Amino acid sequence: MYGQIRFERNPHLKTKPGIQDDLGFGRIFTDHMLVLDYEEGQGWHDPRIIPYAPLSYDPAAMIFHYGQAVFEGLKAFRTESGEIQIFRPDQNAKRLNRSSERLNMPPIDETFIVNAIQELVRVDADWVPSKQGASLYIRPFVIATEAGLGVRPSSRYSFVVIMSPVGAYYEEGLQPVKILVESHYARAVHGGTGGAKAAGNYAASLKAQVLAKEHDCAQVLWLDAIDKKSLEEVGSMNVFFKIGGEVITPSLSGSILEGITRKSIIHLLSDWGIPVTERRISIDEIVQAYENGTLEEAFGTGTAAVVSPIGSLLWQDTPMVINNGEIGELVHKLYDTITGIQYGRIADKHGWMVTC
Amino acid sequence: MYGQIRFERNPHLKTKPGIQDDLGFGRIFTDHMLVLDYEEGQGWHDPRIIPYAPLSYDPAAMIFHYGQAVFEGLKAFRTESGEIQIFRPDQNAKRLNRSSERLNMPPIDETFIVNAIQELVRVDADWVPSKQGASLYIRPFVIATEAGLGVRPSSRYSFVVIMSPVGAYYEEGLQPVKILVESHYARAVHGGTGGAKAAGNYAASLKAQVLAKEHDCAQVLWLDAIDKKSLEEVGSMNVFFKIGGEVITPSLSGSILEGITRKSIIHLLSDWGIPVTERRISIDEIVQAYENGTLEEAFGTGTAAVVSPIGSLLWQDTPMVINNGEIGELVHKLYDTITGIQYGRIADKHGWMVTC
Repeated sequence: MYGQIRFERNPHLKTKPGIQDDLGFGRIFTDHMLVLDYEEGQGWHDPRIIPYAPLSYDPAAMIFHYGQAVFEGLKAFRTESGEIQIFRPDQNAKRLNRSSERLNMPPIDETFIVNAIQELVRVDADWVPSKQGASLYIRPFVIATEAGLGVRPSSRYSFVVIMSPVGAYYEEGLQPVKILVESHYARAVHGGTGGAKAAGNYAASLKAQVLAKEHDCAQVLWLDAIDKKSLEEVGSMNVFFKIGGEVITPSLSGSILEGITRKSIIHLLSDWGIPVTERRISIDEIVQAYENGTLEEAFGTGTAAVVSPIGSLLWQDTPMVINNGEIGELVHKLYDTITGIQYGRIADKHGWMVTC
Repeated sequence: MYGQIRFERNPHLKTKPGIQDDLGFGRIFTDHMLVLDYEEGQGWHDPRIIPYAPLSYDPAAMIFHYGQAVFEGLKAFRTESGEIQIFRPDQNAKRLNRSSERLNMPPIDETFIVNAIQELVRVDADWVPSKQGASLYIRPFVIATEAGLGVRPSSRYSFVVIMSPVGAYYEEGLQPVKILVESHYARAVHGGTGGAKAAGNYAASLKAQVLAKEHDCAQVLWLDAIDKKSLEEVGSMNVFFKIGGEVITPSLSGSILEGITRKSIIHLLSDWGIPVTERRISIDEIVQAYENGTLEEAFGTGTAAVVSPIGSLLWQDTPMVINNGEIGELVHKLYDTITGIQYGRIADKHGWMVTC
């Protein structure tokens, strides 16, 4: 599809970070990147792995004006036996196209996406960290590149994949966080772009994120923009609650991102015979469960952290402390299982891992 | 403010379009652009007018991922006496900062913005068309340029101004258009970014725009995302209705852009003693006015077109033809007055025009 991927080796390889270096998240990038171009009439063409270098576009390129951009995030892991494997890249490829569809951008062959990512990881295989908990974060994105100020779908796009070695999200084990329940700002709305991994969603969320930090909270818990009651996401993660033995996560209403970690967790819980329900859940229900003592656990889920236990929720200036602010048993088991599969310590029964 | 604007003249001037050339909108750009950079700790710095050239950023620059970008649009006109004047640039400067505030971006001194635009227009003065109805479209924008994949406000930005000679919006006089009333997709929501000229809003609107074209309509009339009844904007313009002698435009609810043409029209109508009200107006009210014969005129307003008469509204598969599909008297008078002021044919009583 789209022809052979052309390869131009970087003649100036960077110094790779050492085993003791603090990698952080998305700050250091590998030696190569993948690029594929689109032009109306011609379609996607000229796939190439080239040296990591600045992207250069006309100042009138639509990406600088109208936010027509979608992205994905996934990870490659080095197993104890030294193999490199990627977590569910087919799911990211599918979601990238769903996001593109919402912003009227052309789809990319999903097999091509997965193969191209595998090839890029192989080229920069030495960048996949071997340190426990570290991984190679992969960032595919599509941007509108036509130079023109008319508001309409771009006729040109670039699909780019860059990669960044990232440290363990939890250097010292899982850490419960404090979350602000946000009732003023909206992240998304039914009929909007909340279900897509669209660039503009993230810009829209920054103001509330800053507000959360001012309240000494790590993130916000978003409520539905319409009823200001239904729970949506926590920061840029999906959210789960364990109430009276049942696990509940908001159903995909169109304004919630269909998380791949979310999907995997629902799968695991079903495997384990733990009741798990996707449905509307309101902040009132959480308050009630908190008050009658049945709110057992709460956690966010996403690619970067896998799971992020919520230690307390700040709602209308009152904190609700969950599970005494400690890490719950379930969230711990989910974390150990998913990271176990990712690093090859636990058998991959579901065929989630793709080797490079 | 920010020091003297450095000037680097373009050694390779482009061939300017001729008087007979079709300029279109935002396709041709002048010889120079203005750039101002921001870095946390240092603030805005290094203002410069330099040759129009591609912008080059690290592939991890936040503009490519998280949509942290706002823009403005305004015009410079050549009067019959050959002077060049800009329509209300102070208003655009103010709004740019309001938009930036919503996306957690740093404000820019408003006097600097206006002065810098004037200076840039002076440098490329030969690009301001003299043809009737044509003008120089000015596009200031601010984009997040920090290279990093963590979702948080960028620590670096660029403010860029580019300019494009544009043709008359109506080559053959005002043209009424057909509009699709959109009830599925949402453009914005209370608590969201609809009140800001944020890049992501425009990407979010494309899908419905394409749908409108499929219905042989020029644009969509957006309904409020929550009640699906209240009118918001038409395409990317504000919207006005004349019902039984009264002019009504949706009030600024937070999800509607505070248009400068909108503001100017409200001002003119008040001057003329025509009743004008900013309030919630629903599609039901429009249907009712249509049915009882009091819906006299409807039009969009914005910088590109000034006014755009609505000839018919397609609502639930039924077209409502307004004023027999003809251009209304009021919309005509507004168009003639505003363009008259812009081209110096009518006295600028309100001090709206700024000479270069």
